[in-house]
Amino acid sequence: MTFRAHILGAAAGGGLPQWNCGCENCNLARAGVIPSQTQSSVAFSANDLDWAVLNASPDIRQQLAQTPVLHPTDLRQSPLRSILLTNGDIDHIAGLLTLREQQAFTLFATKDIHGVLADNPVFDALNPNFVTRKTIKLGEPVEIAPGLRAALFAVPGKVPLYLEGASVQTDLEGEQTVGVCLQADGKTAYYIPGCSTFRPDLRARTDGADAVFFDGTLWQDDEMVAAGLSQKTGQRMGHMSMSGPDGSIEAFKDLNIAQKIFVHMNNTNPVLRPGSPQLKQAEASGWTIAQDGMEITI
Amino acid sequence: MTFRAHILGAAAGGGLPQWNCGCENCNLARAGVIPSQTQSSVAFSANDLDWAVLNASPDIRQQLAQTPVLHPTDLRQSPLRSILLTNGDIDHIAGLLTLREQQAFTLFATKDIHGVLADNPVFDALNPNFVTRKTIKLGEPVEIAPGLRAALFAVPGKVPLYLEGASVQTDLEGEQTVGVCLQADGKTAYYIPGCSTFRPDLRARTDGADAVFFDGTLWQDDEMVAAGLSQKTGQRMGHMSMSGPDGSIEAFKDLNIAQKIFVHMNNTNPVLRPGSPQLKQAEASGWTIAQDGMEITI
Repeated sequence: MTFRAHILGAAAGGGLPQWNCGCENCNLARAGVIPSQTQSSVAFSANDLDWAVLNASPDIRQQLAQTPVLHPTDLRQSPLRSILLTNGDIDHIAGLLTLREQQAFTLFATKDIHGVLADNPVFDALNPNFVTRKTIKLGEPVEIAPGLRAALFAVPGKVPLYLEGASVQTDLEGEQTVGVCLQADGKTAYYIPGCSTFRPDLRARTDGADAVFFDGTLWQDDEMVAAGLSQKTGQRMGHMSMSGPDGSIEAFKDLNIAQKIFVHMNNTNPVLRPGSPQLKQAEASGWTIAQDGMEITI
Repeated sequence: MTFRAHILGAAAGGGLPQWNCGCENCNLARAGVIPSQTQSSVAFSANDLDWAVLNASPDIRQQLAQTPVLHPTDLRQSPLRSILLTNGDIDHIAGLLTLREQQAFTLFATKDIHGVLADNPVFDALNPNFVTRKTIKLGEPVEIAPGLRAALFAVPGKVPLYLEGASVQTDLEGEQTVGVCLQADGKTAYYIPGCSTFRPDLRARTDGADAVFFDGTLWQDDEMVAAGLSQKTGQRMGHMSMSGPDGSIEAFKDLNIAQKIFVHMNNTNPVLRPGSPQLKQAEASGWTIAQDGMEITI
C-alpha cells in the first residue's frame, strides 16, 4: 500500500502554452525554453495499480499517453477506476468526452456538478452501460479506487464561466466548487484546485495533513490585467493568489503540513519559469510547484 | 497565393494511441515504434497567413502548439480565422471547448450541426461577443478565410453516436454529415472525412479535382470485430473501407484526381504501420496516408 499522486496536468484552463496567447511564458514554452504544462488533473492511487483521476482535463488523452501507470493493461482494460470532478469548469470536465470508448469507470461528483453534465446531451458520449455516475454528498466519504477514500467539502468559488449570469458571486459556498479530502494508507491529502478565499474552516481542516495540493492559479491578483491579457482579477475568476498578505503562501504559513504543492497554475504565473524570483520565493516558503509528470509519494 | 493544407490530426476518434486500447497499433505507438496520430482535423489556407480549421479535434490544443503557422502572432492574435464542422461527432466538435479564450473567429456549420451545439450549454464557453456562429446552406459557397471558399454537400452518414436512437440509419443524406468543396487560387480540393457509401454524385463531383482528402477510417469493414475490439463494422459506424470491391481505393480508381489523401484513420488501420502490406497497396494505388504535421500544397 502506497499512497501516491501523479500530476497529469499542472496548468490552469488554457494550459501552457495557451493556444491563442502570446505572453512571455507561452512564447517561452512554445520555444521549448521552459516546460509546457497541460491542464489541471491529478491521479491518485493507494496501490499503484488502480487510479482515480481528479478532474478530466481537455488534455487527458495526451496526459494518459504520457503516463505509463495509466496505460491499458489488456486489449481494452484501463487502470483508471474513476473520475472525480471538483467543479464544472471546462478545464475539469471537457476530458470526459475523450473517455468515451466503452470503458467501465465511475464518475463521481456532487449533485450540482452532475446537473451541469446532465444538461448537456454531448456527455451522453459516456455510455451509461459502462460509465456509472455517482452523486457524492458533501462530507460523505466514498471509495474512489481500492483503498482510497474521498470526502468532499465546499470551498468558496463561483459557477463555471459559461454559466455565469449578469452578476457573479465569487465566494459562493455550496456544491459547485469543492475540495477533496483523500485518505489512504493512514495518510491524508487535500486536493483543492480552485478556492477564492481562505476561511478558518479550511485552516482547521488542513492543519496536520500529509499533503495539500492547492490552487496556484495566479502569483498576484492583477497579474493578467498587468500583462494586458484580461480585465479580470484572480478574485473575479474565483481564485486567491499565491503572494501577498491575503495570499495562500501567507495563509498556510504556520500550518503543520508535510507537503504543500501548488497546482492549477495559469500560463501567466511567473512560478512556471525556472529560476524566477517568484519560484524561489514559493520554494523558500516550503511549496512545490507541480509539473506535468511529477510523482509524489504521500 | 498558395492553396495549402496542413494535417493537424490524421487519426479518427480516439486517436493513435487511444487511451484505453491495447491493440497492436496502439501499443506500437505508445512504445514509439510507429508515429502517434492525433484526432481528425485539417487546416487550409490560401495565403499561408490566415487559416480555416476543418473540424475541431479534442486534441486541438496539442495540434496548434505543434504547428508554427498557427501560433499567435501577438499578445492575443491567432492566425485561426474560422472553424468549419463536417458533422457533430465528438472527434470533430470537442475541440471547440479549447477555443474558449476570448478569441474572435467564425464557426461555420449546417443548421443541423449548429443545432447540436445549441442543445449543449457547455458550448456557450464560446463567448458570442467573440465567436460568430454562421449557418451554411448546402451548395452555398462562403469565404472561410481570405481567398478560400467552401461549399458543403451532403454525403451518406449517420447522426453522432451520442444522439443515436434505437435504430440507426447509416446512409442518411442531409445536413448531419457533409463533405466540403474548397476553392482557392484556381484550384479545387475536397475534404470528406466521413462517408458511408460512394454514390454517383460524389464520383461526378470529385472527378478532375486537384486534391481529395477522404475517409480512411478502416482498411476493411470487419477490422475492429476481427481485432476483438468492437462488435461494430465500419458500415455500422458510417464509414466505407479502403479495400475491397466496395472500398474507396476501387471507387476512386479511374477518376482524374491529382492528389488523393486518406484522413481520419482509425487506430486499428494497418496503413498506420510503416512498411505494412496494406500501406504499400494504398500507396501503389496512388493514395497518400495523412500523418500529423504533413503539409500539402494543392
